[in-house]
Amino acid sequence: MNTKDETNINSPLGVGGLQIILNPIGIIRTPHTDVKNMPIQPIAAEGIRGTIELLPEYAAGLKDIEGFSHLTLIYRFHKIEGYELEVVPFMDTVAHGIFASKAPKRPNAIGISTVKLLAVEGSILHIEQVDMLDGTPLIDIKPFYPRYDNRENVKIGWLEKNKNLPLDKLRSDERFK
Amino acid sequence: MNTKDETNINSPLGVGGLQIILNPIGIIRTPHTDVKNMPIQPIAAEGIRGTIELLPEYAAGLKDIEGFSHLTLIYRFHKIEGYELEVVPFMDTVAHGIFASKAPKRPNAIGISTVKLLAVEGSILHIEQVDMLDGTPLIDIKPFYPRYDNRENVKIGWLEKNKNLPLDKLRSDERFK
Repeated sequence: MNTKDETNINSPLGVGGLQIILNPIGIIRTPHTDVKNMPIQPIAAEGIRGTIELLPEYAAGLKDIEGFSHLTLIYRFHKIEGYELEVVPFMDTVAHGIFASKAPKRPNAIGISTVKLLAVEGSILHIEQVDMLDGTPLIDIKPFYPRYDNRENVKIGWLEKNKNLPLDKLRSDERFK
Repeated sequence: MNTKDETNINSPLGVGGLQIILNPIGIIRTPHTDVKNMPIQPIAAEGIRGTIELLPEYAAGLKDIEGFSHLTLIYRFHKIEGYELEVVPFMDTVAHGIFASKAPKRPNAIGISTVKLLAVEGSILHIEQVDMLDGTPLIDIKPFYPRYDNRENVKIGWLEKNKNLPLDKLRSDERFK
C-alpha cells in the first residue's frame, strides 16, 4: 500500500479526485440479519453477543489485545446504498445534516462501535454489545482507552431532548433500508 | 455508490477479495507538517487549532452541527506506507499487536480523533485539539455523544502502566515515518 500516491489529485481542495482503497481485515458475525428493529448503538445491545472472524493473515496483530475490555471497531455499513446530506435520524422527527447525526446512510458509509471483548481464540474474537448487521466487513480494531476516548462537558445539540430516552427505544426501523 | 456489489467475493471469510472504495469528503488543515514530535492524541493538543475544508458539495450535511461541542473525525493516515502487525507504540518499549495499539502504521491506516468544534463558516469548520498532519484526507464526521461514546469500568491492558503519563509526553517520534 502506498498511500502517498493517493494524494496526487486535481480537485479544488486537493482531495476530490482521491480515492482511498481499503481491504477489510475480517467479518463481524452477529444475530442481526435485518436492518429493521436493531439496536442502534452498543449500549442498546447489552448481552447481545457476536464474533469477529479476523482473516488469519492478521492474527499476529491481536497480541496483548486480551488485556482490553473494550474495542472500537471501524466497519462498513455494507447494506447501505447511496447517501443523503439531510436525514431524519431514528431518534427524531425533523431533518438534520448527516454530519450532525450518526445515521448510517452517509457519505462513505463507515460505522464505529465500541464493544466489549469477551475472549480471543486464535483469529476469532468473542464480543458483546454488537449493534451491526451480520456479515459486516471489518476495517480496523482499536483498543478503547478512556483517557483518550472519553469526553466530558460536551454539548450535544439536537440530541439534548432525547438524552433520557430509555435504552429499549434505541432501535432502528426501515428508513435507511 | 452501490456497496452491495462489494460483497460478491471469494475468500474463505467472504471478505478477503473485497475492496472498499472511499471518496474523501474534505481535507484537514493543521499546524503539523512533520510526523515527528506531534501530539499523538487530541488531549495532548489542547489549544492547537485547525480547520476542516469540507468539499462544498457536502456542505448541506453540516445542518445543526454547530450545536455539538465535539466531533469525531475519521480520516486517512495519508503519509503512512504499509503496516506492521506488531509494533512498539510511542508509549512503550516492547512490541504489541497493532490491534492492541492505536499506532498509525496499521492495516487500512484509518485514524479517529474527537476534536472540539469552535465555529462553522459555510463549508469550513474551525476545530481545536488537532492531532493529525496537515493535508489529512477526511472520510467522515460524526457528532460526539457521551451517552453512546463514553465507556466506564474499562480494562486497558498494557496501557495501565502509562495511565499517569503527563500530557506533554504524548508526542510522536520518527518510528512510523
